[in-house]
Amino acid sequence: MAKVSVFGAGSWGTALAILLTENGHDTILWSHRKEQAEELAREREHREKLPKVLLPEKLEITADLEAALKERDVLVLAVPSVAVRSTAKKMRPYVKEGQLIVNVAKGIEEHTLTTLTDMIEEEIPGSCACVLSGPSHAEEVSRGLPTTCVVGARSRETAEYLQNIFMSPVFRVYISPDILGIELGGALKNVIALAAGTADGLGYGDNTKAALITRGITEISRLGIAMGARADTFYGLSGIGDLIVTCASRHSRNRKAGFLMGQGRTMEEAMKEVNMVVEGVYSAKAGLELSRKYGVEMPIIQQVNRVLFEGKNPAEAVKELMVRDKKIESWDSAWEK
Amino acid sequence: MAKVSVFGAGSWGTALAILLTENGHDTILWSHRKEQAEELAREREHREKLPKVLLPEKLEITADLEAALKERDVLVLAVPSVAVRSTAKKMRPYVKEGQLIVNVAKGIEEHTLTTLTDMIEEEIPGSCACVLSGPSHAEEVSRGLPTTCVVGARSRETAEYLQNIFMSPVFRVYISPDILGIELGGALKNVIALAAGTADGLGYGDNTKAALITRGITEISRLGIAMGARADTFYGLSGIGDLIVTCASRHSRNRKAGFLMGQGRTMEEAMKEVNMVVEGVYSAKAGLELSRKYGVEMPIIQQVNRVLFEGKNPAEAVKELMVRDKKIESWDSAWEK
Repeated sequence: MAKVSVFGAGSWGTALAILLTENGHDTILWSHRKEQAEELAREREHREKLPKVLLPEKLEITADLEAALKERDVLVLAVPSVAVRSTAKKMRPYVKEGQLIVNVAKGIEEHTLTTLTDMIEEEIPGSCACVLSGPSHAEEVSRGLPTTCVVGARSRETAEYLQNIFMSPVFRVYISPDILGIELGGALKNVIALAAGTADGLGYGDNTKAALITRGITEISRLGIAMGARADTFYGLSGIGDLIVTCASRHSRNRKAGFLMGQGRTMEEAMKEVNMVVEGVYSAKAGLELSRKYGVEMPIIQQVNRVLFEGKNPAEAVKELMVRDKKIESWDSAWEK
Repeated sequence: MAKVSVFGAGSWGTALAILLTENGHDTILWSHRKEQAEELAREREHREKLPKVLLPEKLEITADLEAALKERDVLVLAVPSVAVRSTAKKMRPYVKEGQLIVNVAKGIEEHTLTTLTDMIEEEIPGSCACVLSGPSHAEEVSRGLPTTCVVGARSRETAEYLQNIFMSPVFRVYISPDILGIELGGALKNVIALAAGTADGLGYGDNTKAALITRGITEISRLGIAMGARADTFYGLSGIGDLIVTCASRHSRNRKAGFLMGQGRTMEEAMKEVNMVVEGVYSAKAGLELSRKYGVEMPIIQQVNRVLFEGKNPAEAVKELMVRDKKIESWDSAWEK
């Protein structure tokens, strides 16, 4: 059994800490807020994020960063994407060679276009950052509902080691070498979820939403391939799988913000009403920048940007997506070949 | 403008006939039942299948097969998959060279493992059969909600011709050379919808459903590639797109039958309660046969067969899918390469 620490006591970090403890690992859950750590340790329940789910007796909870880092085999980074850089910076003095870092946040840094594992390796030189992603609502994982994820790592040995750490009878873990593809899918799905939510808000049906999901992953994979990721990844659990869950969910903030805009709110009004960070708004900008940088056509992400930042009418945006040039579905498999 | 006839006045045939008429084509809708043809012509509404949707004035409705076939450019075959062979047989004496046949039904013949376009070309020698498929609930298309589909044809010229016939500002049509891939995706999605419905019936969450959809299309594409279809097709509108719509829909008979089995009904009880043809039950057998014939591992389709025909407990089937050997997500992109 391994010694594992989970950094970040949000819903996902807490659900993973429960899973890891139940898998028999010596697990610590770290919160950056002392009061929260004390409350969780006392109540043995995360009332705000995972009500009615018991924290196992053996799960240790702390706000002491050094203690949470000392002599641990695996460090799971489960802070929001905007806090990854600062948390990695704080961790740096205590991280030792051989400790594996697993990022489970999703995002791309807006101005630098850096992925989160790259960011971690920038802040903690010499570290080895891996990724865990997939269609996994924290609330369902914490209730033991069957879930699948994928671990991305540079070596097969590392991937298999982490697979063994996370895998359980209700949490199936696949492995992959494509860290970049896994991270891009996780970050950019939120932009497509905004578009899917907007379509719902406009009163469009399941046909429209399925089209946005399908064409959405196509344009994300086009970008990913240009950046060096592997096509298969986007059609796997961390790509289309996670996109499906996000676009179907009534809990997704991205989908909800899109829904409100489809119903006529401005971006600012929608953000205010959702009252939480809407990741897709930042990822939309990053996606557009990346599409320019790599010369890849991304019509849905382009229209989402116009609606978000240029006040374009959402119905007009959908209309433009529908009447674009008549296209071959996949150029890679056209008759020419 | 073209002369088009649609054969089969179910919900999909009727919705397509409305679309084609509104696109400006001289359109005939054929029903095999004289009374139905007369009723539709008189009422200008398909009360049973598409209530409150007006049939355009210009749409001609008939039960006269010869009249519906004479001097038409495009013949759209919209009968249920089990009626494709017999309908093609009846059409045979009247079909002339140069008439394009477009199949819009979804299925594989259980005992012969024949796809529907192959079946049409068997029954009407010398004919040229194409296919139209994608995430397209008839009811939403008839209400003008934005929808995307893909046309598959052997030549690019034919595909582009049909693209022009069907395309409208709310009905976007892509083209593809991969007829086989389009048909396999359409037929086998129903088996995955049975599995997804079963998971819903068992009370599992969105994570489980997304996993079944994602791993489902992976195994369908594995089979399709072995049969000579192109991988991209399964990740397009007629593959994952259609699968998403079917698994999300509360109207899908396949999903509903699965749901009832997840809640503890036997296959026979579920069929009785749904009270309509559940395509996925036949496709499940055909899928299993094909996986054996081509030596392709299809764990979800295998478990669906066990639940359907061997009385296996659905919860056990899901459990087995979750604890299979630890796997690499996509062998095509493993570290080895």
